[in-house]
Amino acid sequence: MTKLTLDSSMSLDGFIAGPNQTLDEPLGMGGEQLHEWAFAARSFRDRHGLSGGEVNVDSEVVEESLRNTGATMMGRRMFSGGQGPWEDDPNADAWWGDDPPFHHPVFVLTHHAREPVTKQGGTTFTFVTDGIESALGQARAAAGGKDVAVGGGANTAQQYLAAGLLDELQIHLVPVLLDDGVRLFKSRAGAEQPELECTRVIESPRVTHLRYRVVK
Amino acid sequence: MTKLTLDSSMSLDGFIAGPNQTLDEPLGMGGEQLHEWAFAARSFRDRHGLSGGEVNVDSEVVEESLRNTGATMMGRRMFSGGQGPWEDDPNADAWWGDDPPFHHPVFVLTHHAREPVTKQGGTTFTFVTDGIESALGQARAAAGGKDVAVGGGANTAQQYLAAGLLDELQIHLVPVLLDDGVRLFKSRAGAEQPELECTRVIESPRVTHLRYRVVK
Repeated sequence: MTKLTLDSSMSLDGFIAGPNQTLDEPLGMGGEQLHEWAFAARSFRDRHGLSGGEVNVDSEVVEESLRNTGATMMGRRMFSGGQGPWEDDPNADAWWGDDPPFHHPVFVLTHHAREPVTKQGGTTFTFVTDGIESALGQARAAAGGKDVAVGGGANTAQQYLAAGLLDELQIHLVPVLLDDGVRLFKSRAGAEQPELECTRVIESPRVTHLRYRVVK
Repeated sequence: MTKLTLDSSMSLDGFIAGPNQTLDEPLGMGGEQLHEWAFAARSFRDRHGLSGGEVNVDSEVVEESLRNTGATMMGRRMFSGGQGPWEDDPNADAWWGDDPPFHHPVFVLTHHAREPVTKQGGTTFTFVTDGIESALGQARAAAGGKDVAVGGGANTAQQYLAAGLLDELQIHLVPVLLDDGVRLFKSRAGAEQPELECTRVIESPRVTHLRYRVVK
């Protein structure tokens, strides 16, 4: 059975985006610091059509995730930064560019139905309106035997975690404090918390790569 | 120059105590999970007058901190669980027992003056009412050339961090999610965040020991 993995950068104080998110600054104040380690890594830059970058342990970790992932799921906010009907969303198409970095099928959780969109480089966006389990089923079928990743954002990650569907968390813990913003982990009050087991730690100067297995 | 170190266990989602703290359950709901790794370690148990325990990497990390620390500072809440005048505080003396685990001078930040208290085993509690810098000066003078530790709680740690006085953070990151409770990091809105550099990562089955230098 392939794995369902949550892969996310997080600040030492638990945030995946800073406060005051806007369309121009979707990661909020200071949030871009969470991804500096990735932007400096050769494999990440390759994937995003950028030249240069360091060949280091961070690059290997990104490379490994890219190699193992056959489909990605994300929330509507991560797809376009917007909400509500598509015709009112200024970024309904533009957000991820003509050649998105996924290069595999992406499933977008939304309340608003829409035909699939095919981009360059092998990325297709399929819009799923009937819930997280349906999205997961479709993603598994499309992943070609590889793992499925929950790309984000926090609300989507929390839904999969709460439903007991996640097999693994890969947290890239960045030594910054954002103090406020969007927390990666935040469940409904009284919900049972998953049992986690740390299965791998990789240290690098910019980030600590932590892998946890969800004990079922 | 000796270091001022914050040494704290923290959940993966950033809490040092769970919700609903009471005098009977000072770590809140689920908070005791943050310290299971320490309770299982031989050096921690030795220090607390308990037998048994595992000789493992966790035990070595505790041993190292005990060896390097000559004085500890803590907030009033960590000292007694109470607040306000001492005569109204049912735990003004009993909280840490007759033979507290510090075995060195402890400085308690409080708004309520009180004579020092000497316990068995080398632990003295000195009550400081004129602020965190005064407490640090007294602790440094009493530490015999060793490091000074900020024991907690969160409010005290946050004050030292915000004042730029901390040299090092040692975070014992525990793979549990508490979801709510007392956050280790929480500054006033708009306060500048310290720059951190990860200087050591030690992996063990129960906890990841992370050390950060505060860049000054």
